[in-house]
Amino acid sequence: MYKINSNFQKLPGSYLFSDIARKVAAFAEANPQADIIRLGIGDVTRPLTPTIIKAMHDAVDEMGTEEGFHGYAPDLGYDFLRDAIAGEYKDRGVDVSADEIFVSDGAKSDSAAIQELFSQDTRIAVTDPVYPVYVDSNVMAGRCGNWDAKKEQWSDIIYLPVTAENDFVPEFPSQIPDVVYLCLPNNPTGTTLTKDQLQDWVDWANRNGVLIIFDAAYEAYISQPDVPHSIYECRGARACAIELRSFSKNAGFTGVRLGFTVLPRDIVQGGISLHDMWARRHGTKFNGAPYITQRAGQAVYSDQGQREIRELVAYYMKNAKIIHDGLAEAGFEVYGGVNAPYIWLKAPGNMSSWDFFDYLLREVNIVGTPGSGFGPSGEHYFRLTAFGSYENTLRAVERIGKMKV
Amino acid sequence: MYKINSNFQKLPGSYLFSDIARKVAAFAEANPQADIIRLGIGDVTRPLTPTIIKAMHDAVDEMGTEEGFHGYAPDLGYDFLRDAIAGEYKDRGVDVSADEIFVSDGAKSDSAAIQELFSQDTRIAVTDPVYPVYVDSNVMAGRCGNWDAKKEQWSDIIYLPVTAENDFVPEFPSQIPDVVYLCLPNNPTGTTLTKDQLQDWVDWANRNGVLIIFDAAYEAYISQPDVPHSIYECRGARACAIELRSFSKNAGFTGVRLGFTVLPRDIVQGGISLHDMWARRHGTKFNGAPYITQRAGQAVYSDQGQREIRELVAYYMKNAKIIHDGLAEAGFEVYGGVNAPYIWLKAPGNMSSWDFFDYLLREVNIVGTPGSGFGPSGEHYFRLTAFGSYENTLRAVERIGKMKV
Repeated sequence: MYKINSNFQKLPGSYLFSDIARKVAAFAEANPQADIIRLGIGDVTRPLTPTIIKAMHDAVDEMGTEEGFHGYAPDLGYDFLRDAIAGEYKDRGVDVSADEIFVSDGAKSDSAAIQELFSQDTRIAVTDPVYPVYVDSNVMAGRCGNWDAKKEQWSDIIYLPVTAENDFVPEFPSQIPDVVYLCLPNNPTGTTLTKDQLQDWVDWANRNGVLIIFDAAYEAYISQPDVPHSIYECRGARACAIELRSFSKNAGFTGVRLGFTVLPRDIVQGGISLHDMWARRHGTKFNGAPYITQRAGQAVYSDQGQREIRELVAYYMKNAKIIHDGLAEAGFEVYGGVNAPYIWLKAPGNMSSWDFFDYLLREVNIVGTPGSGFGPSGEHYFRLTAFGSYENTLRAVERIGKMKV
Repeated sequence: MYKINSNFQKLPGSYLFSDIARKVAAFAEANPQADIIRLGIGDVTRPLTPTIIKAMHDAVDEMGTEEGFHGYAPDLGYDFLRDAIAGEYKDRGVDVSADEIFVSDGAKSDSAAIQELFSQDTRIAVTDPVYPVYVDSNVMAGRCGNWDAKKEQWSDIIYLPVTAENDFVPEFPSQIPDVVYLCLPNNPTGTTLTKDQLQDWVDWANRNGVLIIFDAAYEAYISQPDVPHSIYECRGARACAIELRSFSKNAGFTGVRLGFTVLPRDIVQGGISLHDMWARRHGTKFNGAPYITQRAGQAVYSDQGQREIRELVAYYMKNAKIIHDGLAEAGFEVYGGVNAPYIWLKAPGNMSSWDFFDYLLREVNIVGTPGSGFGPSGEHYFRLTAFGSYENTLRAVERIGKMKV
């Protein structure tokens, strides 16, 4: 008689963004006339740029010919893409070689799978609030203990609050974790750390034998010079940090699916290399990212591709500024939006995050993401994204500005 | 201090096809003049067909426009594809609804991930020989006990030998497993079961509370009328079977990446639905298959798409017949190749599988797959695939026919 993985049953409710999608669908059905503006899920809306489109058409054409057809991709990615990625690191003065880059179908898959490398009793730490996948994937693997519905915390996770009170800079925990997830620039708060602050984390990790999973999905949005784009800009990071990267937010690949993980060969313990383990995992459980997609990824690194994605990022960052400044002007307490496409605001009048979600949807037909969905310290906060169209962003801010809260 | 998942260290050696790739690369480097013919890995070689190519170009164009851009796909797949797949089941008289279909980036990912639904102490059974992913993914999850290097078996796996001695029909094991993986038509043996034989397995599973993971990646190659294309053609299968399907072998998508899993709502135990668990897993750890790829998948189900993939399958099956008949004529003991693109042969003179691999590569520069790589009962067997070009297949059979073995 088959037995289920009972860890799944521990998860309270469903995946955050599935919940939101259901709520919005129900509202839209009940209010067919409502002109809903979606600034909830971090999904881009601008089309793929011409250089990417051309690369994909060319690759599709190749796949239709005997000479140009490509079957199974190399497990870890085509050299043409791994080399292009390594080139970007090199240009940044960062030491990452092509064979330390593992191409995948996206950073969500990688951030959910990376925990498979660790023992069952690995103690993880996450910032709070945090992208839910880090926690949920560990819960499913039975690594987080039990859910405390009152605290809204897992008994075996170490939470690192990031709130206005500590200026969104996490403090080193008194209990040392085995693995810590850091997403910088941060999803959901839109805040980040300076290079010096991140260096402190790297030094702390090396001193304490902690492994850092560094999610840099939003690095393209960094505008301030003292914010690092890669954790490997910090001394010693090659010995203690795995970096996750995405093409979703810089090049608009949310519906194309491409990402990569950097796993330096220096991360070795007791003679066992995490690089080799991750390679084994890729070889056994994944069949490579599609040829066409990897050609699209390569095009991102061309000179013209780079120009185009800079425009794309600028488009969204203009939205971010509109939201940030508009809400601040309307009297909201607002964070983020400078090095990230997310704006993090305090719900007015001490409303709960979900109450504010319902309120915004009902009163002005705007969808955001309740901060509490990202962790207990996200309660009373709310996330808006800059990924809508310019026009919708303007309209949304206008609507919110007129609200009586 | 982070601790690794020590189950990875239990895996003897690397993934089978990575091993083969390394051996062949070394041979090719040492013998640059060698005209190597690859009939090893089950990778297709024919280009994508015109209807697929057109669908992909159209979808790429859409992605380049504001109106046609698609971001994150629905977690479980676009309705247009799920409906098309459900339609095929309906045409076959099989009861599968669109919302029981979970679209993914390929059957390898799904067959590696499906074990996450089960408890740690789940006892699995596999045919022997078997596609390595079923075993390796369970080993990585710590579910298979220890490797017995002498028996070449895992202590906690129940093996179901399929060899010439039992006509490649597995016997019901005396010890009842919780979950059994059946791949039919079979990879690697190329053999299959009749509908009556599979019905016996479904009845046995229902009687004993066993869950069947049914991998139907090769169903398009079935030529005999009494062989089922789907396990749901058998009575009662909706209560005990999950079906995995792929676009790799029917439509040549090995480098495109698309597959799906059918998880009927009837599979419920103690009120817990595996369908809901798999949906949660998709939502949390996967971000949907790409829009362009799903449009390509939809094109497979158009009338013209179906005509084209039938031609593709016929092309490879002609190769299968050439290999099967040519080897039989040359005095080899040969199986498979009638309902599957794989030919399974006995290595001559009681050679081991790997010795025959080396011998074939060295003497006639042909790459096959050692049967022992698929499990202990595969020892002394060898797999050739029909996925080469017609010309190479002819040449390969001619070379093997002339060998002095």
